[in-house]
Amino acid sequence: MIKAGIVGATGYAGAELVRLLFAHPEAEIAAVSSVSFEGQALSEVYPSYRFLNDMICEDQDAVVEKSDVIFAALPHGLSQELAAKCIGAGKAFIDLGADFRLKSEDEYAEWYGGTFLDKSLHEQSVYGLPEFFRDAIKGKKLVANPGCYTTCSPLAIAPAVIKGLVSVKGIICDCKSGVTGAGRKPTQGSHFPELNEGFHAYKVASHRHTPEIEQTLSKLSGEDVTVTFVPHLLPVNRGILATVYADIKDGVTFEQIRDSYEDFYKDEVFIRLLPDGQCADIHNVRYSNFCDISIHHDKRAGKLIACAAIDNMVKGAAGQAIQNMNIIFGLDETAGLILVPPAF
Amino acid sequence: MIKAGIVGATGYAGAELVRLLFAHPEAEIAAVSSVSFEGQALSEVYPSYRFLNDMICEDQDAVVEKSDVIFAALPHGLSQELAAKCIGAGKAFIDLGADFRLKSEDEYAEWYGGTFLDKSLHEQSVYGLPEFFRDAIKGKKLVANPGCYTTCSPLAIAPAVIKGLVSVKGIICDCKSGVTGAGRKPTQGSHFPELNEGFHAYKVASHRHTPEIEQTLSKLSGEDVTVTFVPHLLPVNRGILATVYADIKDGVTFEQIRDSYEDFYKDEVFIRLLPDGQCADIHNVRYSNFCDISIHHDKRAGKLIACAAIDNMVKGAAGQAIQNMNIIFGLDETAGLILVPPAF
Amino acid sequence: MIKAGIVGATGYAGAELVRLLFAHPEAEIAAVSSVSFEGQALSEVYPSYRFLNDMICEDQDAVVEKSDVIFAALPHGLSQELAAKCIGAGKAFIDLGADFRLKSEDEYAEWYGGTFLDKSLHEQSVYGLPEFFRDAIKGKKLVANPGCYTTCSPLAIAPAVIKGLVSVKGIICDCKSGVTGAGRKPTQGSHFPELNEGFHAYKVASHRHTPEIEQTLSKLSGEDVTVTFVPHLLPVNRGILATVYADIKDGVTFEQIRDSYEDFYKDEVFIRLLPDGQCADIHNVRYSNFCDISIHHDKRAGKLIACAAIDNMVKGAAGQAIQNMNIIFGLDETAGLILVPPAF
Amino acid sequence: MIKAGIVGATGYAGAELVRLLFAHPEAEIAAVSSVSFEGQALSEVYPSYRFLNDMICEDQDAVVEKSDVIFAALPHGLSQELAAKCIGAGKAFIDLGADFRLKSEDEYAEWYGGTFLDKSLHEQSVYGLPEFFRDAIKGKKLVANPGCYTTCSPLAIAPAVIKGLVSVKGIICDCKSGVTGAGRKPTQGSHFPELNEGFHAYKVASHRHTPEIEQTLSKLSGEDVTVTFVPHLLPVNRGILATVYADIKDGVTFEQIRDSYEDFYKDEVFIRLLPDGQCADIHNVRYSNFCDISIHHDKRAGKLIACAAIDNMVKGAAGQAIQNMNIIFGLDETAGLILVPPAF
Repeated sequence: MIKAGIVGATGYAGAELVRLLFAHPEAEIAAVSSVSFEGQALSEVYPSYRFLNDMICEDQDAVVEKSDVIFAALPHGLSQELAAKCIGAGKAFIDLGADFRLKSEDEYAEWYGGTFLDKSLHEQSVYGLPEFFRDAIKGKKLVANPGCYTTCSPLAIAPAVIKGLVSVKGIICDCKSGVTGAGRKPTQGSHFPELNEGFHAYKVASHRHTPEIEQTLSKLSGEDVTVTFVPHLLPVNRGILATVYADIKDGVTFEQIRDSYEDFYKDEVFIRLLPDGQCADIHNVRYSNFCDISIHHDKRAGKLIACAAIDNMVKGAAGQAIQNMNIIFGLDETAGLILVPPAF
Repeated sequence: MIKAGIVGATGYAGAELVRLLFAHPEAEIAAVSSVSFEGQALSEVYPSYRFLNDMICEDQDAVVEKSDVIFAALPHGLSQELAAKCIGAGKAFIDLGADFRLKSEDEYAEWYGGTFLDKSLHEQSVYGLPEFFRDAIKGKKLVANPGCYTTCSPLAIAPAVIKGLVSVKGIICDCKSGVTGAGRKPTQGSHFPELNEGFHAYKVASHRHTPEIEQTLSKLSGEDVTVTFVPHLLPVNRGILATVYADIKDGVTFEQIRDSYEDFYKDEVFIRLLPDGQCADIHNVRYSNFCDISIHHDKRAGKLIACAAIDNMVKGAAGQAIQNMNIIFGLDETAGLILVPPAF
Repeated sequence: MIKAGIVGATGYAGAELVRLLFAHPEAEIAAVSSVSFEGQALSEVYPSYRFLNDMICEDQDAVVEKSDVIFAALPHGLSQELAAKCIGAGKAFIDLGADFRLKSEDEYAEWYGGTFLDKSLHEQSVYGLPEFFRDAIKGKKLVANPGCYTTCSPLAIAPAVIKGLVSVKGIICDCKSGVTGAGRKPTQGSHFPELNEGFHAYKVASHRHTPEIEQTLSKLSGEDVTVTFVPHLLPVNRGILATVYADIKDGVTFEQIRDSYEDFYKDEVFIRLLPDGQCADIHNVRYSNFCDISIHHDKRAGKLIACAAIDNMVKGAAGQAIQNMNIIFGLDETAGLILVPPAF
Repeated sequence: MIKAGIVGATGYAGAELVRLLFAHPEAEIAAVSSVSFEGQALSEVYPSYRFLNDMICEDQDAVVEKSDVIFAALPHGLSQELAAKCIGAGKAFIDLGADFRLKSEDEYAEWYGGTFLDKSLHEQSVYGLPEFFRDAIKGKKLVANPGCYTTCSPLAIAPAVIKGLVSVKGIICDCKSGVTGAGRKPTQGSHFPELNEGFHAYKVASHRHTPEIEQTLSKLSGEDVTVTFVPHLLPVNRGILATVYADIKDGVTFEQIRDSYEDFYKDEVFIRLLPDGQCADIHNVRYSNFCDISIHHDKRAGKLIACAAIDNMVKGAAGQAIQNMNIIFGLDETAGLILVPPAF
């Protein structure tokens, strides 16, 4: 059994790792830590875990010591030092935060306001979106787990971009996320009476996931991609729907586009490409690692419209992190992750 | 007091007219009709109206006879004959359905599959979006009340379009609607356990409101506008948020765009243009006739992003219908419509 | 016009007073105060009020000075001093908090931990549940506005208690409240992802509203009533449903019970007694001052089951406060309060 | 592997069986049937199951033939004939409907309006609430799986009833259920805009689960128990909270009551007895087979208040059915059922 440790276990991404690892056939949780709840049982913070995981939250060092792989679910800026410690101790490190996602230190500085503390660490790190970068992940010890929007948006449009069927200019990602994406800490915006029966955009064209989406699409296409990214907040717990718009190039048929998707995703277990006429729905992927994708043709305007739905806490965070763990430890990539999304 | 009649009073738009007219200072409900509930009290269908409106649903003819103005909230295709009857009897007719919205019979045939039964009636009709066509509405007797998406989307982008500050090519309307827009009839898609915690697009680039949005923007701009329109279904009762994307023309500054909005809407009571940094939220317009608009600048991609929020049943249906009634009867346009959106 | 002032205007009860007073024909808001938001506009705190009420929050003294009647929506313990100031200045004072609700200082000490600062003030105060104590309210200047559970529960069962048709021993009030009852301050329990799709009891048999319910039923019945009161938290914004159980006395028929309700409430505009076979639903009273009541007979167990539904923020707080204002100022009791509950 | 068949697989209970059996280590789905969707894939009806279970719905006979155990999720009245066929063919039969739940044919006739078609079948059947009747279930082939309310309510109060610590007179079960309990068929009452933000009781003191609760408590106590049962409808997908009230007998301490619960449930994996001060919450048992129970003391009124929370579709239907299957096939009772309730 792989010994897994979770640093930041009482945040939502950490808590979701606990839920998913519970059922993993080849990994077990060795230790968990939490700054806010050190010394308390995880099941005091999340009573739904009672009798299933009553581990006491320890400190970071205890987690590192007891684990083969450390999952870090920390606010940005706090992972680099921990990563160095883990890598130094020969452990695998999977970062659910943003510290290692951007390859360009300039972009990191611009969007997050920090610097790369140890450039060699950043060079060792790999961006953990397995459907695109599986081969690069294998054998690595330091994985930057993508964000939620940044998983969903590129998955929606990548095949057409890679095949050069759509223009990489003017791509629009209109995304809608459930509120768990904003974390466990209560705020006015997540206060039930003010979010319930509401819906709005936020951080319009200024969200930190923008450069990360661009980095992925640029790498896949070999071109310099700029996207317009607008996130919105849904009054639901889980799920992201990305509705992505791209201009179809002259002479390209929708059949070619559909073929590109079918071909690109044909061996991907977690991608469910829907038949024509169906629309991806976050309802159908909740609590699972699936990404449902539907593609649509605006014939009048010559646009491809691709919808991708994920559970932001699973494929958009904890599930994908475990998928990365499976890859780097040479397990079946789907181990512990074939979860049935409930029908209701 | 103006005597108002409602044909189709037990559908959601009709029921909302009942709610709003109850508090109107210069109009009163003279009669209501319903095919499904004829002979039953409105408050049997909607127990929230108990003791406030216990009128018995009659037939269409009774409504026409007793009323100065007839509001029709009928499935498309059923309004033309009724309109003829009302106009023939010298009554005003406000159609909340789609029969008179499209000026082109070809487009009507293409999107709705019907024909114009009486072309002269269509010539007498006016498209009732007061913020754009107020002067044309005055003195008319036959008003085509716009649909919900088709109110919200043009209101979001019109000032920039009219002033020629954005390209009319490639406009995208990514819209999200509460479920009352789908009506009172239970369906699998509106069944609580299947809609709750879900979110998806539908009728992607094929919704009937597309030509109506294009008609409005084309008329306002004097150019032939094609839009990409994608509606989504929100797990909330009320509200539409339209997120509209347009390419800013070369040399145009965002200040010019903001000026165009401030100028165009400066005397519009029902339009609340939000300051920079705020985002329109459907939560803040529920149960009211307001349209909140926020505008945003994607500097990196050179796009204007405009968000408009309305209550789909009020500004998107019954409230706007009353606004039109106020105009054609020469009342204060806001009579009965200064409703405070609840804070929670 | 009566000049109304609101102390604590940015809390939920205060904000609801703002919404309701906006439409009052004979009162207007003269001033509002807020400790947390002094100097800011109310519409900055509640953007739904934009352009409708952009008043700046002042301090308490300014409110007292400018107003004929002061509504206080403060945490318990803070109203007594303010009440003294208002009464001293000849103003009317309506307290939405708990300071004047309990007539027994011992009970106040037991449940709230405080003392009566000025006993004569308490003697001048009247408990403002108009359907029971209307005559006592008239001509008073100091009204203790009941709490939400304490309005709903006695309204459900009072007629049968007053007529002696049910035992006053063993009455059970199983109540379920929307989350606005917990106020504006975000907490873990009101954080959307943790309340949504949840439901639980809280403060079981230990909630502070218990002695207040008992006080009202004891006064009405002339007997010493003890109730079992269990509140639960509903994942909805507004509304309380009280399901009240009482043992029917030997020989009493259900027809007698129904008669007692019809008789007691026959002139009460805000009480809607439902016919047999219907069940009170919070959905049908939202945003209104109505209390819907349904009564049911458990023949097998010999029990009366009465359900009462109110909007906790209206009949359970701000609406009832205005109803009390109307009474003490000699206005029509329903002025500004005939609000149509939306059908959806 | 045990071959399991599901008759009525496209209803909610059937669909939940599909979800749970997918992950069962010692059973696999051999066939599914549906009258409404015969010939269609299950994943066409429930797109969340796409690629996980794309089985085609067959007819009942095919299911019986291919299976070792048949789960029937049918409207009442339709199971008896099917049971006879299954038992005749030597198969195990687990009925999620009501046909075999009541032992008294008179009560069945009174509450369901039917008769016992084959009395010997009813004699062979056992009531499948394992925490109470485990030994009787072992070795049986015909199990009447309890209803949702009828699982939750007795679990809440049984230990105190069995030990004779509370009066069996006057027990009140005030229950609140998520809407999946009403099934997959859309109705006005489950139409999103009318259920959302609503809450009401239904079938007050007349619900068919009443005699079933009484049968269980009578059997456990050896006394003739009559309960008052009032169900309510919650605007959530899943979960039932039963708040049960009983009079504590003279001289009994709350410690004795707590001891009775701890003792009775000490070896029950699926019962999580919460410590003093916590309240059972449906949020914490969703998607799992757990029943969380909290007990509370109303010292002033001398009452025990017990709250029990289950997922109505799991412990209240499909999960318990699998628990019964595990028992009758001699598997570990928890096989496939240690499911972590998600924290959000």
